[in-house]
Amino acid sequence: MTMMTRGLQRVFMRSTAFSTRHFSQSTKETVGIIGLGQMGGHMANNLFAGGKKLVVCDVDPANTKAIASKGATVAKSPREVAEQCDTVITMLPNTGIVEEVYLGKDGLQSVLRPEHFFIDSSTIDAIFTKSLSEKIHAQGARFVDAPVSGGVVGAENATLTFMVGGEKDEFEHVKPLLTHMGKNIVHCGGSSMGQVAKVCNNLALIIQMTSVAEAMNLGVKLGMDPQVLRGIMNTSTSQCWSSTVYHPYPGLMENVPSTNGYKGGFSSSLVKKDLGLGVDAAKNAQVTLPLTYAVHQLYSMIVNEGHGNKDFSYILQFLKGKN
Amino acid sequence: MTMMTRGLQRVFMRSTAFSTRHFSQSTKETVGIIGLGQMGGHMANNLFAGGKKLVVCDVDPANTKAIASKGATVAKSPREVAEQCDTVITMLPNTGIVEEVYLGKDGLQSVLRPEHFFIDSSTIDAIFTKSLSEKIHAQGARFVDAPVSGGVVGAENATLTFMVGGEKDEFEHVKPLLTHMGKNIVHCGGSSMGQVAKVCNNLALIIQMTSVAEAMNLGVKLGMDPQVLRGIMNTSTSQCWSSTVYHPYPGLMENVPSTNGYKGGFSSSLVKKDLGLGVDAAKNAQVTLPLTYAVHQLYSMIVNEGHGNKDFSYILQFLKGKN
Amino acid sequence: MTMMTRGLQRVFMRSTAFSTRHFSQSTKETVGIIGLGQMGGHMANNLFAGGKKLVVCDVDPANTKAIASKGATVAKSPREVAEQCDTVITMLPNTGIVEEVYLGKDGLQSVLRPEHFFIDSSTIDAIFTKSLSEKIHAQGARFVDAPVSGGVVGAENATLTFMVGGEKDEFEHVKPLLTHMGKNIVHCGGSSMGQVAKVCNNLALIIQMTSVAEAMNLGVKLGMDPQVLRGIMNTSTSQCWSSTVYHPYPGLMENVPSTNGYKGGFSSSLVKKDLGLGVDAAKNAQVTLPLTYAVHQLYSMIVNEGHGNKDFSYILQFLKGKN
Amino acid sequence: MTMMTRGLQRVFMRSTAFSTRHFSQSTKETVGIIGLGQMGGHMANNLFAGGKKLVVCDVDPANTKAIASKGATVAKSPREVAEQCDTVITMLPNTGIVEEVYLGKDGLQSVLRPEHFFIDSSTIDAIFTKSLSEKIHAQGARFVDAPVSGGVVGAENATLTFMVGGEKDEFEHVKPLLTHMGKNIVHCGGSSMGQVAKVCNNLALIIQMTSVAEAMNLGVKLGMDPQVLRGIMNTSTSQCWSSTVYHPYPGLMENVPSTNGYKGGFSSSLVKKDLGLGVDAAKNAQVTLPLTYAVHQLYSMIVNEGHGNKDFSYILQFLKGKN
Repeated sequence: MTMMTRGLQRVFMRSTAFSTRHFSQSTKETVGIIGLGQMGGHMANNLFAGGKKLVVCDVDPANTKAIASKGATVAKSPREVAEQCDTVITMLPNTGIVEEVYLGKDGLQSVLRPEHFFIDSSTIDAIFTKSLSEKIHAQGARFVDAPVSGGVVGAENATLTFMVGGEKDEFEHVKPLLTHMGKNIVHCGGSSMGQVAKVCNNLALIIQMTSVAEAMNLGVKLGMDPQVLRGIMNTSTSQCWSSTVYHPYPGLMENVPSTNGYKGGFSSSLVKKDLGLGVDAAKNAQVTLPLTYAVHQLYSMIVNEGHGNKDFSYILQFLKGKN
Repeated sequence: MTMMTRGLQRVFMRSTAFSTRHFSQSTKETVGIIGLGQMGGHMANNLFAGGKKLVVCDVDPANTKAIASKGATVAKSPREVAEQCDTVITMLPNTGIVEEVYLGKDGLQSVLRPEHFFIDSSTIDAIFTKSLSEKIHAQGARFVDAPVSGGVVGAENATLTFMVGGEKDEFEHVKPLLTHMGKNIVHCGGSSMGQVAKVCNNLALIIQMTSVAEAMNLGVKLGMDPQVLRGIMNTSTSQCWSSTVYHPYPGLMENVPSTNGYKGGFSSSLVKKDLGLGVDAAKNAQVTLPLTYAVHQLYSMIVNEGHGNKDFSYILQFLKGKN
Repeated sequence: MTMMTRGLQRVFMRSTAFSTRHFSQSTKETVGIIGLGQMGGHMANNLFAGGKKLVVCDVDPANTKAIASKGATVAKSPREVAEQCDTVITMLPNTGIVEEVYLGKDGLQSVLRPEHFFIDSSTIDAIFTKSLSEKIHAQGARFVDAPVSGGVVGAENATLTFMVGGEKDEFEHVKPLLTHMGKNIVHCGGSSMGQVAKVCNNLALIIQMTSVAEAMNLGVKLGMDPQVLRGIMNTSTSQCWSSTVYHPYPGLMENVPSTNGYKGGFSSSLVKKDLGLGVDAAKNAQVTLPLTYAVHQLYSMIVNEGHGNKDFSYILQFLKGKN
Repeated sequence: MTMMTRGLQRVFMRSTAFSTRHFSQSTKETVGIIGLGQMGGHMANNLFAGGKKLVVCDVDPANTKAIASKGATVAKSPREVAEQCDTVITMLPNTGIVEEVYLGKDGLQSVLRPEHFFIDSSTIDAIFTKSLSEKIHAQGARFVDAPVSGGVVGAENATLTFMVGGEKDEFEHVKPLLTHMGKNIVHCGGSSMGQVAKVCNNLALIIQMTSVAEAMNLGVKLGMDPQVLRGIMNTSTSQCWSSTVYHPYPGLMENVPSTNGYKGGFSSSLVKKDLGLGVDAAKNAQVTLPLTYAVHQLYSMIVNEGHGNKDFSYILQFLKGKN
């Protein structure tokens, strides 16, 4: 049997099982959410607003209070969430914590049943995600990775982009649910491809932001009007989102962090974390990413200088120095 | 007198002088071109097709043959060109040669007269350009920098973009002439700002191209479909011209060098030269450009490996290695 | 109680226990070795030559044959080794395998007893090493990290340097044993400090080697005699081991890999792995190491170009290109 | 005639001419010095203390006062110095100024005679030096490049190292004179090889210093005692001058800038300038120097952050940040 036919057969078998076991009314209406931080909290609110019953869990009790007061059930552990819900969303800070929540003692895996459908919206290591997905599927349950872009504002306004990695039927299954929390739900390919898409997009984004910062710093120092330079770049071969939509030079655009003291937005600490996933993936997959490595170190300096909470467009000021 | 009023006065005085001395019929119709290489040769053809009389000059007699056979006058030296023409376009390979042609023994400066209007379309050092412009203006003649983008194809098809640095009236004066050779004629600011715009655009472009190469190499190695990844990037925060219009991954787009064995386009050797201008400018202007420096070294490797004639999107293959 | 006094008390209690439980004749004479690759195989031979009885284990049966024919006992699993020996040396390829051998199902930890003294000579992640050491000590057994430098040749000739991390008494205890396999046994500090010393030494070494390569490539291209340049560097402020003892320019020294087609020595693949430990440690410890990151990427290119088996001084040729 | 025999013949002819025209008593005793900055001022004092008559010149009259009060003649221009002395030492800040002093209007070249012997101790572009030397030799006079290392302290104490580029007989001729100002007078090869040696040594030195800084920052953050780490590095494969003699970690050594608030020593501004020469040379000679480029950008950041006057070992603190 070729890989192709094996793959098709697997999809077929799954699809069959799927139709018979998943769509009872009650499980559709209750959703578990593990991780109610800045992102997960807003996502929970939007699901609640969309009519879902919620079972939630967070290491910090303060994070569950607000949603509990609206009627959500607070579980004591991830395991309890999985006992009470078929559909569970995880939104956690890093790979280690995701590993613990799924595979640790009293983790989700310990109470796995075929009805379970897990959606991991954390931004974590793609290679780990793939192996986690394989473990869960091997036990007959379902899992998709669905990291997001759009930040806290997108989470609050339900305008997130979800990058989903999983089989086509899995994607179709989670899409309606994710639509309560985001406006773009993109199928990136099989398992882990959501994480891959996110890490690739982010490393390119951050390098491009730095490219705009370098061009602006040089141009302005040589005497060019920053708005003119931006205009030229936006209509030529160096056009990119960071210049068009999110320009790092203060005062050229309204409503971007650079014009607002680099507050809000995509924090340099988080940028460093996301680039770290690129660094790890490159190392493990034997891929050479010299600029990704270089910007990881630049953001490491920014964080160690105490500017980790500033938006990542701060790279322009960092490279400018006191010059 | 403030700088502003001095500046205005200067413009005013020029404008006056301008109207009285420049627009005799004969000088309008004859244009000198120094440098008939791959770019200059096509530019000369387009001017000729636009009805101009030409006086041309090139170190290599072979380069002047074709245009001479159409009726252009071949001068023996830059000096002779300037003796015969008020309007002179220079299209030369580097700063050193531009310096020699303008300021060297028997250079253009040696026969300068107030009627002269020089247009330097070479891509050279912005700081040198500024001082050259000042010298020429100090002698009562005119000079604009007007480097181009669009490559050999743009030169052939008269679709170049000209980035012009000079006073507003100088820009307006050269615009009709440049329109014979290009379709976008952009005023980038005062003297040397054309060179500044070009170097800034190009360094950002090359870094962005490398960012797309890194994202693609990582994504595909981790199992992602390249066309899907390109689609996601083009609709998200890592969207840039290099991905939208000129993608480095072979086979995703038609009519781009990556799909055509990296032939044609913007050669890696030329990229290295243009980045070198960024490196120099940064050094002289005390600006920090870590990614510009990094990509300069990557293209230095590409050139030293013997791939200098390949389009710059070859960076994807270079970073991929034999992996 | 201060940390200092707690530390002293712990050492004292350990020392007492130590003297009463460790030095029976039989356990002193039998040593377990897990991992009989290129390094571990030679180390086993030297221990055997020093009169030790050996219990060995390797995933590849071929690796245990030679030593078995001399009389070593071959165990079926790491667990069996630990059941039969109090003193166990592990010499394994990476952090993941060390984790599995110690902490995995049927790992060493599963049969841990207070008499156990583990010596891990693998080169692995320092932060993991620290936590592993803590787990083992918490169960009443002993552990030191003792990575080596000196390569396969050092392993064969018993001239390795052992960098030992552990309490002073632990260091004194293992020193006589390690002396059978190496000539420099260095106490680097408490637990994990052997790994820290090794990663720090290696990243500095590799950067320095690259610095010599850059200086030589530039100097020779500008016309300097390579032997003269080496002589000047060796007597001035850029003197370093890579230039004095292990020069990367072919033909300047006898008996170095550069003079021998870059065969043997410290392979570029292993360099990349060791630099990867530096990259990981820096990321986890929030330390900025721009040159370490940069050389990691250079060696990633070397490996992906198919030169992973060449000595790391090959960086000179790699940077030179076909130039 | 082969290059070798032509070279020998040239040396022979020169040597003959040499013996007949150079060694009159008066010219031996008078030395011109152009450039009396921090370095040149001390060098003048040491020549004066060695019994030489001096004719000096500096753009800043304040710099000539002290030596004039001891009896030196102050010339109004470089030209005047060359008119009054056969032997002229230049010690100037950069390539542009050296070019002006030698080749500019009223420069040394304008009064050149066969008796002239120029010694340029400035640290400048090697490729320019070579062409300058050729011009001077073509006019029948002599020139050696002789940049120094050892800094202001070395200049004051006459312990500089002079790296001399020129013919063997030229080297022998200048050696006695240079011995008044330095203790190591090294013949680096033909014309410009002194500059080449210096730029190569310095780029390697600065990269090595950074390698020590990275190793120390990582090791100490991971818990290692800095003095222990230094000891291990100094006896192993990462041994280098920066660690042995000039350690960047504060408090490990006496009498080094790191222990003295990074005061004195080799300023980061000067490091940036010297690395800039490496960057230029690499660009012009088509050599790839990724780490040289990288450290140039790191020192650019240091300077732009306002720490240009700090010793270059400050890189350790810069990379550490507020961490």
